Amino acid sequence: MLINNRIKLEVTGHIARVTLARPEKMNAIDPDMFAAVPMVGEELRKDKSIRVVILDAEGDNFCSGLDKASIAGLMSPGKDADSGTLSVSDLSTRTHGIANAPQYAAWMWRELPMPVIVALRGITFGGGLQIALGGDMRYASADSQFSILEMKWGIIPDMSSTQVMRHLVADDVIRELTYTARIFSAQDALKWGFITDIVEDPLAHAYSIAEQIVAKNPVAVRAAKQMLDQAPYQTQAEGLLFESQEQDKILGTPNQIEAVMSQMQKRAPNYED
Amino acid sequence: MLINNRIKLEVTGHIARVTLARPEKMNAIDPDMFAAVPMVGEELRKDKSIRVVILDAEGDNFCSGLDKASIAGLMSPGKDADSGTLSVSDLSTRTHGIANAPQYAAWMWRELPMPVIVALRGITFGGGLQIALGGDMRYASADSQFSILEMKWGIIPDMSSTQVMRHLVADDVIRELTYTARIFSAQDALKWGFITDIVEDPLAHAYSIAEQIVAKNPVAVRAAKQMLDQAPYQTQAEGLLFESQEQDKILGTPNQIEAVMSQMQKRAPNYED
Amino acid sequence: MLINNRIKLEVTGHIARVTLARPEKMNAIDPDMFAAVPMVGEELRKDKSIRVVILDAEGDNFCSGLDKASIAGLMSPGKDADSGTLSVSDLSTRTHGIANAPQYAAWMWRELPMPVIVALRGITFGGGLQIALGGDMRYASADSQFSILEMKWGIIPDMSSTQVMRHLVADDVIRELTYTARIFSAQDALKWGFITDIVEDPLAHAYSIAEQIVAKNPVAVRAAKQMLDQAPYQTQAEGLLFESQEQDKILGTPNQIEAVMSQMQKRAPNYED
Repeated sequence: MLINNRIKLEVTGHIARVTLARPEKMNAIDPDMFAAVPMVGEELRKDKSIRVVILDAEGDNFCSGLDKASIAGLMSPGKDADSGTLSVSDLSTRTHGIANAPQYAAWMWRELPMPVIVALRGITFGGGLQIALGGDMRYASADSQFSILEMKWGIIPDMSSTQVMRHLVADDVIRELTYTARIFSAQDALKWGFITDIVEDPLAHAYSIAEQIVAKNPVAVRAAKQMLDQAPYQTQAEGLLFESQEQDKILGTPNQIEAVMSQMQKRAPNYED
Repeated sequence: MLINNRIKLEVTGHIARVTLARPEKMNAIDPDMFAAVPMVGEELRKDKSIRVVILDAEGDNFCSGLDKASIAGLMSPGKDADSGTLSVSDLSTRTHGIANAPQYAAWMWRELPMPVIVALRGITFGGGLQIALGGDMRYASADSQFSILEMKWGIIPDMSSTQVMRHLVADDVIRELTYTARIFSAQDALKWGFITDIVEDPLAHAYSIAEQIVAKNPVAVRAAKQMLDQAPYQTQAEGLLFESQEQDKILGTPNQIEAVMSQMQKRAPNYED
Repeated sequence: MLINNRIKLEVTGHIARVTLARPEKMNAIDPDMFAAVPMVGEELRKDKSIRVVILDAEGDNFCSGLDKASIAGLMSPGKDADSGTLSVSDLSTRTHGIANAPQYAAWMWRELPMPVIVALRGITFGGGLQIALGGDMRYASADSQFSILEMKWGIIPDMSSTQVMRHLVADDVIRELTYTARIFSAQDALKWGFITDIVEDPLAHAYSIAEQIVAKNPVAVRAAKQMLDQAPYQTQAEGLLFESQEQDKILGTPNQIEAVMSQMQKRAPNYED
């Protein structure tokens, strides 16, 4: 399924593959791409059988950031959105929960109930990096390149990455890369925490992790995602209580019993979605 | 001293050694082990001469997590605790300060006033890893193995680790390991932050660090532990004020003067406990 | 310009170089050094053309921490400040915003509106390390040495570092180094996050990073610093809103347009300060 002419969605078994599909422009973000993301999110939430999402991109690069017309549009905020360039008037108005539309293109993945695994190749710059950071884990090829590119255009990164990077990368490194907008390698990205691992074949690796997750109690996996989303924003008392409240909902349920029984009987589990 | 038939406690000089003592079961956690931890805590708090605690385990492994009977018990929450399996009804009720009983087995070490150094060998899985994370620092042998094992049993980690790992390990790594429950090496554990260092002899190394701490002003060490516990939960203003308030209590006290004098006179210090 | 006989200030182009200037004492901190820092801060805030600050030190070492007279003064809090030793009575009173005077020597760099790059050589111990941590990034020579030295004098680190290290270094490492006060190498400092990189010539590297920052929209750079200061203390909703509010102030302004135009025209930018 091609959504808004920008993103492909394909579900196999319990795994949804979401693919940025504008390879002739290095999957650069334009208003249609921004609009496509929430549509994809709606599809993913509708299908209760989906336990994991893989996010990748067509061609040799993940995403080069905003496209040229949108960068030009940054210089005239308030310009009519219908002109086909990005409307950037009044970014402060919340239109998508706690986010605005560009932020939601990155933040949506974090609000999905199931884990999102991102497979990266080639260039992942600016808004593209912020979208990638929205996922739970990121696996990249050794020749990947990254940049917190925004300062190149005289702007700051504003697509939710400040609330994600701070749980991944040391504060001084974020500062250097934000201030200078310099390009960095997959090796540095791994050392600093922007990516989870460097792998030979990012998409194949994403599927192999996804299959491991599919074999786990889907209710517990979703509870774990919610718990790990919240943990860094909780006090110790809130965090310990949240762990217990979520576990109380899981213990003794059919899927939890199935997880134990399938382990003890050394067979594949059969969960209810 | 053997406590509740599960944990040994031995005090030498200012160092208490606490040893999980169920080696024939890889120190697997059962209700008696959970019950033993607060008893150990009481002993440690009673003896004002104890400046550091070392936590290790008998045999070739630190702890394999919940024992088999307790895992079976997870499937029937509310079952009578007297049956000898784990009672897991109503985990949300706080019975040990901000924790429940299983959480307190891990969280207790963090609430002790003195530093806790954990020495790890072999397997440290599931609840065992959460107990180890309760300590201030962790030193492990090169052949150690780790797992956030809970998802194997269809459950989430709920023994306080979400409020400890977030100060040690990057968010994406925690997610991958929580969702997949896969086993990881000491080398990965060090790279990711689960352990403080890989050492030839973890127990000997723990003693060598403990002896360095014993030579420091015990009041300042305890203040430092409290300060480092609180720092990640404070605003900048709260944190800076806390530093000052704690220092105001320390400056000019006999132990602080003794620290300076013993340094200047190049002799061993002699502190009041 | 030599300020309070302790710190040199020199502005070239848009870069201010601030140099601790007490090399015969390894730039050890005394009351005059503490007093010099806010004076430097005032100068830096006055000159609107300054876009980046470089902080380094004369001689072979950055700073050995408190000087001997000040360490002796710690033992008698409340002693007359006029005696030339450090006055450490009532550290809890806030005299410099959220800080007291010693804290402000480290925290001031963080409150400056422009990025501060620290160049380190030789010894960076105790209060010296806390001052270095006040900067945005730290570049050090391979033979640098570091220590959270305070416990050597029976005290705790109280110059704001607990609110900086927690965004740089894993919790267990901070604990080990705080409790033991042991000296660690540049290689360990890099591995653990105390420094941003090891470089051949720290001052030259600081200038090269500074020049990259000078070529960026200075309003966006200052907004980025403020945003990265605040991000770890915000909820997700607060953080996402802050990103948008700051961006709304930047988009379409002359400097932002100049950033895009100079990129598109492949020429050096010409910003208004």
